[in-house]
Formats: sequence, structure tokens, C-alpha cells
Amino acid sequence: MGGDHGAQVTIPAALSFVNENTDARILLVGLPDVVEAELKRQSVSTGDRIQVRSAPEVVAMDEAPASALRGKRESSMRIAIDAVKNLDAHACVSAGNTGALMAISRFVLKMLPGIERPAIASFLPTIRGHTCVLDLGANVDCTADHLLQFAVMGSSLISAVDQIERPSVGLLNIGEEAIKGNEVVKQAAELLRDSGLNFYGNIEGTDIYKGTTDVIVCDGFVGNVALKTSEGLAQMLAAYLREEFERNLLTKISGVVALPVINAFRRRVDHRRYNGASLLGLKGVVVKSHGSADSFGFRFAIQRAYEEAQHDVLRRITDRMATIQQKAA
Amino acid sequence: MGGDHGAQVTIPAALSFVNENTDARILLVGLPDVVEAELKRQSVSTGDRIQVRSAPEVVAMDEAPASALRGKRESSMRIAIDAVKNLDAHACVSAGNTGALMAISRFVLKMLPGIERPAIASFLPTIRGHTCVLDLGANVDCTADHLLQFAVMGSSLISAVDQIERPSVGLLNIGEEAIKGNEVVKQAAELLRDSGLNFYGNIEGTDIYKGTTDVIVCDGFVGNVALKTSEGLAQMLAAYLREEFERNLLTKISGVVALPVINAFRRRVDHRRYNGASLLGLKGVVVKSHGSADSFGFRFAIQRAYEEAQHDVLRRITDRMATIQQKAA
Repeated sequence: MGGDHGAQVTIPAALSFVNENTDARILLVGLPDVVEAELKRQSVSTGDRIQVRSAPEVVAMDEAPASALRGKRESSMRIAIDAVKNLDAHACVSAGNTGALMAISRFVLKMLPGIERPAIASFLPTIRGHTCVLDLGANVDCTADHLLQFAVMGSSLISAVDQIERPSVGLLNIGEEAIKGNEVVKQAAELLRDSGLNFYGNIEGTDIYKGTTDVIVCDGFVGNVALKTSEGLAQMLAAYLREEFERNLLTKISGVVALPVINAFRRRVDHRRYNGASLLGLKGVVVKSHGSADSFGFRFAIQRAYEEAQHDVLRRITDRMATIQQKAA
Repeated sequence: MGGDHGAQVTIPAALSFVNENTDARILLVGLPDVVEAELKRQSVSTGDRIQVRSAPEVVAMDEAPASALRGKRESSMRIAIDAVKNLDAHACVSAGNTGALMAISRFVLKMLPGIERPAIASFLPTIRGHTCVLDLGANVDCTADHLLQFAVMGSSLISAVDQIERPSVGLLNIGEEAIKGNEVVKQAAELLRDSGLNFYGNIEGTDIYKGTTDVIVCDGFVGNVALKTSEGLAQMLAAYLREEFERNLLTKISGVVALPVINAFRRRVDHRRYNGASLLGLKGVVVKSHGSADSFGFRFAIQRAYEEAQHDVLRRITDRMATIQQKAA
């Protein structure tokens, strides 16, 4: 029961989710005292659809992944992922330490055939709807093959969740300047052209929010910088807008008048609706919530995990990889 | 006289600039007919402070840099850069083909001692003011030494233009995930720690717009993606805000009421104020304007070139590199 806020965020989100999805069941894994206290606070008792599994240990948010993996076999994170492996759960959702979640998932669940490394995939809003971007930080040095595997995983995710037969895939590259892209990206473009995927070609940073393609592939360094730069810019623009409305009495009044519009705008760009990054490539569904997510946001991460399990993303990835490998052989 | 709009944008901007800066002189380089027609349209005659140099050729916006370099020795771009080399001008400003400008500048002007490659540096707005980010796309595969040189160049630029004695330098890296940064970034951090520069340490994408450091160093691939992702996000948010205000009569009325605030906000985040990317590392001041800049924006690019020449950025870079190389020897 990790994250910055712990059970007070994750449990209400889970309860709200099972309430609204009558075919869903939830397994709460954590320190028994903490879980029980929160269930009591919510006046909810356990039963067939809400179960609890005790975990005596907790992975700290700043703990080294290796230490969490080797030293804490009774952590809630480990026990939740074990539950996925043992088919006691269809998916694991965590707001905890990303590195530890990645390391434990990889160790316990192992990789799908043909996939060398897990990737972090997330949905971002676009002018047209949303796009799936990966990798967002799991892999800092990628080969062209890794980028191809990311493309397969992103396509499988989008085609499952959005019911798009052949999602378009863009390769994130740089623009008009002298040399277009580094060697890895150039090789990846060739692999993608031969992959049977719906490869759109190179795209630029501007294309992310334009929604030019359904899936965007990049190495984890670039993806992480793009994501966090976006977060920073959005925060700055929000702060500027607030400052301008608070400048004097007149601007404050116009702020009150414009409030319904500003609120509609805020709802539309609310990053909490995009909370929940998929750790793709594993033999199990694992979704990482932002550590600072509130209940509203955490619920979206649960929703993501639910949809991935429901639409059998893992089988789609496996099938597509097998087709590509047969073609290459 | 390149760019998407040509002399109709660049000449009015140049005229406005010399009008307001009485110590500035301008050398207009381009097709004589076009330049003369625009000067006539503006009712301006040449003289000591406004001079014209004819260039019979034009580098096309989509021309290959090698073709522009070898095939068009009479292009306005080449003649303008020749003027910088021959000390007829203190700086060159162009809205033309970036790759060609880079290739011609490098060929004609050569690199400053100790600098291996030119970098594209630009100012971005932050919560606190602005920050200088480089490289934004000139170099897709960088070594740690290149990143160190970028840091020296960015520091020299900021200390010259903003009169900051020891600007802080951040190394753009990724966050909390498993492995922090790739090998090049790790090595660059070590070099920066020993450089005598005011090295802040690693920063993340969110830090760009927070204004955590005065200078931000990254390879050109990452920098280009960060910049263009920001452009795309800003466009999407602007479109969303517009849509929400145009939704119905009530929202339109509140839009009219909020207009002064929205306009103040727009002025504050107006990207045209940040137009003008410096091609640093050359033995001459060269500034690239966005190809689609209007006169208002192009004037900021001229301003940037003027400040760089005035505050002797090139000497500062040379001195700082010499100090670092002596230390290393």
C-alpha cells in the first residue's frame, strides 16, 4: 500500500471501483492494521469481492530496487505481484517505488516471449483524444530491437483498449535540423517498416499532443524528459493564469465570471484522468500509479489495469511478437 | 532573406530595431529587387546605418545543407556569414534553413578553440524568469565532452546577457526510475563537477519551466524533443481554452469579460518573445529565427544577436574553455 498517501488513497479508490464494476474483485495487500483501520473508517467489511492479504513489510519510496527485491520478500509489493503470478489476481496496481516495482515484477513474473525489457507506457491527452507513449523511463539505452518491441506492445495495448484494429505507430525523432535522428532511431525505422505494424514514420515532439499517431515509440530517456517537461510546462502555465486572474479586483471579478469555463478547461486537462502507467512486456498486468495520486487519480490506474486484463493485452503482445519473429526467421 | 515570409517580415523588423537602438547598424543581404521593393514600401532609404548587400541566390527552406554549402556561394545566407567573417558585421540573423545555416556557418567561420561542435541554444520562459537550454537539435549523438562544452557556452551566454557572475548549470536527466541516466550523462556529470562551473547537478524535465537552473545542458535529440513537445502542449492547451470559451453564449460572454486577463496571460507566454536561437561555438555570432516568425518575433532574434555581440560572448567562451583545458592538462 505504497505511494505518498498510502491506504487512505488506495483503499477508497479500490472500493469505489468495485462498487461501480460489478464483475470486479479486489485484493487489498498491505499491513493488516492499516488496511483494517481504513476499511473500518470506510464502514466496509471484507467478503467475496473485497479481500485482504497481509503483508508485514513495506518497500520505502526511496529504497534501492535491489534492496527491495532481495531484502523484502514479505512486502506488500512483492505479495501483490506474487498474487498475479499465482493467478490469484489478474493485475497489480501500485503507487509505490517505481524502480522496485519494475525489479520485483521482472523477477517474479518474467518477460513475455520475444520481449527483452519491460517498458513504461502511458496515455497522454491529445487534440483528438489520446495517444500511448512508451518508454517513459524504464530503459535509458535502447537498441532498435527494443524500440520495435515497444511498438508491438503499444500497438497491442491500444488495439485492445480502444478497439482499433491497426493502431498507427510514430517513431519520435527530431525535426528539420541537419541530421535527422541518431543511428538507433534510423535502424528502428527500418525494422518498423518491415514489421507489419501500421508504421506512420518519424514524428516530432509537436506531434505528441497533436495526436498524429495512436502510439509513440521512443527510448526511456527521451520519453521521460518529454513527459516531465510537459508536467513542468502545464504547472507553469497554470500558475501564470492564476496570477493574472489574481492581479487586482477587476481581474478577480472576471475570474469569478470565467470560473465555469476555467473549471471545464481544468477537468479536460486534469492529469489525474491519465494516471496509471502500464509496465508492459511482463507475464502479468502491472500498473504504476503516480506516487502523489489522490483517490480520484488512483481509481484511473485501477481502471487501466482492469481494461488490460479484460482485453487480454498480454496475449495480443505474444501473438504479434511471434508473427514478427516468424517473419524474420 | 529566408524564412517562410521573407523580406516582408525581416526588413520591417530590422528597421524597427535600428530605429530604437541608435548605436546599431544593419546590413540587409538578399535579392536586390526584393530588398529594394520592401525598403520602398517602408519609405526608407539606405544610408550609413541601413546598408544593402546584393545576393543573387537563395537557399531554399528544404534544401540539403551540403547542396547549399557547395552549390550556392552567392546565396544571401553565405554572403551574410561572409560579412561576419570579414568583420563587416558583428552578427548574422537568419530565418532560413537551419541545417544550411549551421553547415555554412561552420565552414566559413570555423569553431572557437576547444569547441568541437556548434550547439543550438535558446531561452525558455520559467516561473522565475528564463533559462538557457542547449543543445536543441544540432547534435544527436553527444559525448560527455560535448555536454561539458555546451555547459561552458550556455554559462558564457547567460553570464554575458544577464550579468550573472556564475550561472547555475543543470544536467538534464531522468528521475526516480531504476537507472538514473545513461553512461554519457553520468560521465558528463563528473566532468561538470570538476569544471569550475557552478554545476547544480542532475535536473529533470519538470525543472526546465521551474527555472531550477540558469543553464540546462542536454544532447540535441533530447533538447529538440523537449522543445517541440512543449510547443505542441502549449498549442493544445490554447486550443482547449479557446474551445471552452466558445462553447455557448454564456461562455462567450465570460470570455469577453475575461479577455483582458487572457490577453495579459497570452503576452506573458508569447513564444515570439523567445524567438532567436544562438548557434554557439562558432567564431562569430549567428542567430537563427524560427522560420515562421513574424516581424515582432524576428525583432527578438535581432535583439539576441545584438546582445551577444555587445557583451562579447565569444571571448567569454574562449576564456572559459582555455581555463578548463589548462586545468585538465
